[in-house]
Amino acid sequence: MLAIKNWQSLSAVDKKLCLTRPITSSSVKNNVADIIKQVRSLGDEALYELTERFDGARLASLQVTPEQIHNAKVSQTTLTAMNQAIKTITAYHQSVLPEHTQVTTAKGIEIATAYRPIQKVGLYVPGGNKTPLISSLFMQAIPAKVAGCPIKVLCTPPDAQGEINEHLLVAARLSGIETIYPLGGAQAIAAMAYGTKSITKVDKIFGPGNSFVTEAKTQISSDPDGAAIDMPAGPSEVMIVADDWANPAFIAADLLAQAEHGADSQVLLICDSVGCAEQVNQQLLLQQDKLSRQALIKQSLANSMILICSDFAEQINIINSYAPEHLIINRVNTASWVDKIYAVGTVFLGPWAAETMGDYVTGSNHVLPTNGFARNHNGLSTSDFLTRFSVQSISQEGILNLGPAAVTLAQIEGLDAHANAVQIRLNSLEI
Amino acid sequence: MLAIKNWQSLSAVDKKLCLTRPITSSSVKNNVADIIKQVRSLGDEALYELTERFDGARLASLQVTPEQIHNAKVSQTTLTAMNQAIKTITAYHQSVLPEHTQVTTAKGIEIATAYRPIQKVGLYVPGGNKTPLISSLFMQAIPAKVAGCPIKVLCTPPDAQGEINEHLLVAARLSGIETIYPLGGAQAIAAMAYGTKSITKVDKIFGPGNSFVTEAKTQISSDPDGAAIDMPAGPSEVMIVADDWANPAFIAADLLAQAEHGADSQVLLICDSVGCAEQVNQQLLLQQDKLSRQALIKQSLANSMILICSDFAEQINIINSYAPEHLIINRVNTASWVDKIYAVGTVFLGPWAAETMGDYVTGSNHVLPTNGFARNHNGLSTSDFLTRFSVQSISQEGILNLGPAAVTLAQIEGLDAHANAVQIRLNSLEI
Repeated sequence: MLAIKNWQSLSAVDKKLCLTRPITSSSVKNNVADIIKQVRSLGDEALYELTERFDGARLASLQVTPEQIHNAKVSQTTLTAMNQAIKTITAYHQSVLPEHTQVTTAKGIEIATAYRPIQKVGLYVPGGNKTPLISSLFMQAIPAKVAGCPIKVLCTPPDAQGEINEHLLVAARLSGIETIYPLGGAQAIAAMAYGTKSITKVDKIFGPGNSFVTEAKTQISSDPDGAAIDMPAGPSEVMIVADDWANPAFIAADLLAQAEHGADSQVLLICDSVGCAEQVNQQLLLQQDKLSRQALIKQSLANSMILICSDFAEQINIINSYAPEHLIINRVNTASWVDKIYAVGTVFLGPWAAETMGDYVTGSNHVLPTNGFARNHNGLSTSDFLTRFSVQSISQEGILNLGPAAVTLAQIEGLDAHANAVQIRLNSLEI
Repeated sequence: MLAIKNWQSLSAVDKKLCLTRPITSSSVKNNVADIIKQVRSLGDEALYELTERFDGARLASLQVTPEQIHNAKVSQTTLTAMNQAIKTITAYHQSVLPEHTQVTTAKGIEIATAYRPIQKVGLYVPGGNKTPLISSLFMQAIPAKVAGCPIKVLCTPPDAQGEINEHLLVAARLSGIETIYPLGGAQAIAAMAYGTKSITKVDKIFGPGNSFVTEAKTQISSDPDGAAIDMPAGPSEVMIVADDWANPAFIAADLLAQAEHGADSQVLLICDSVGCAEQVNQQLLLQQDKLSRQALIKQSLANSMILICSDFAEQINIINSYAPEHLIINRVNTASWVDKIYAVGTVFLGPWAAETMGDYVTGSNHVLPTNGFARNHNGLSTSDFLTRFSVQSISQEGILNLGPAAVTLAQIEGLDAHANAVQIRLNSLEI
């Protein structure tokens, strides 16, 4: 059951409180700094020791063998599902591959924009043997492959026997990952950011993780000797906007799917009437009983609520203020909505667009900005695996045309060596 | 004069040392954290106090009046140069404006990619009254305008009288900036990240600055209540690759232009022969004497050197290892080079392509990754002022087609509420 609030009767303060994410404590900063320090100074030795301490596994080697990857097996049904997901994810990420552009900005001046794959990327998949997050692997490995990144390595925590779940090994094999390190947590991030004897140092690290992983990513990304990262990660969340024609069973199922992610997940429903809200609450009770992660679901539903609001402008305002990671518009008329939305991770349209479909098989990337970061960050895409630079061609005509303007502006800025670099060329052209 | 090193005779350790940036000390962390805390707790009051302390200015108001912006004047020559720069910068940033895409990834599944302007952006221009960095303003304000960001505010430090240089006011007016706060340093960044009574809170902060500004940007960007930032900034740098046909006077002028930025700037020349290196050193001595920022230039030349290396593969390797902010290829045959380069901020091709041209008038953006960040970051562009999200439309056919695969994958990941959200829809379609 979710708390039901009548939006328009709330005070400004209460409205703000409704759209505030649950706070997660973070006292991990120093622990993570220590782990990074250990990995940097002791290398492989630290990785063996930390994996024994945190994962309870005595590793025989820091790398999964090619035979293990090659021999891993899954059922035929699973293999078919994996291949279907790979096909759509590949199609989407190819469709957003940026194209080289070229423009003449003035006579004699041409600027091309070039894209290159990031040379070495590190992928991180959390979880472990019980919940092999194969979809998290696909969402990183496939865009890396589409972008053409030549070196791709994967870290994922081992079980107590030091093993990696076979589903993950097969998913890695199918999506072109050949280098797998059985490492998890902050030590995995540190190893990929700085490299050790056994672990390849990478340029950029991707993937979700717990608070240790997130903190480690933050720390290594502010160090020029470390690596870049994809984006700040937080607890998952969904906002659903539904009208009275929406099936309450579908709405409840979508809320429960998001709620099972973790105790700090948040789910919010905006609907037009109390009637709808109450039917959804009934469905929540009905469906919840059959699910295995009930304890987590109950905790996240306690952070969550239903907002009754039937005013279109106000509904749009709630969405853009909250900036949800996932937005489901389960309404009859969805077309008019998208144009007004500017702060969201991804949008699902219509009754059949379950968020689960986007998590696995639509092809869109499910690594998305949480915690309101959709205001100013994007979900993962092919371009995150590329660098972009401009190539500036200037002819004699070009410098004769705009050189004098450059000299004027450089002089205003007090940079006469800048002006000199153009003037010396202009002088050489005066005969 | 630059130190001349014969690349191929160097040991691996010495090669690495040659490509190491000069270290800048940073003991500003705590000072900056204090400033941010003051601005968050005391708001406008702190801004008045800190501006008096750091800029020596008693401000009458925290905002430049519309009259001041409207009445600011510059010479006709300057106005013409500014308008030429605005024209090319606009043309380039329009040419890289991403287009909405749409793709059918499977039967019944369609994914559109939408772009929206970031709603509130904060621009920062360092410097002050003596060196009004109008080009830094253009490089932020124009892409923000092209992207369509509705709210754009500018912070720039005042002089001791609390005034802003008229060149900057005119540049702001011409590039569509109406809100200017006379604030500099960490306090300006804190004010835009968190907002005060007088200062608009923004979603993302752009622009270069000293170590205080950079540290403040780092701190506010890791706080979900703060703001996103453009990129990590460091001292400016150039790498030039020249052959024996290149004019040594042009090479020296380009090295000096970069060297005048600051004592910690670095300039590196790779050339084919000792003869070229010595001619460039002669030209450095000759040209240096006439420049006003000689003290800075001498310090940065001390961090810099000429590498003799005539092997193409090795030259490319040096470039990609160093990942320079600016690369000038001053050689006869430049076409074959660009394809091999993957880590660079921007490239200038040919003898007339002075880096100064790119700083002001080619239209390309001059805010670029320094400090080796070109390995994994991009220069500023229109897309940095946009957010991107996917819009996922799934029909009945779509869920019938790929729903079963989603259920299979969700179950492998142990997420049965995820599976349920699809299964409940599939069940409703069985008659």
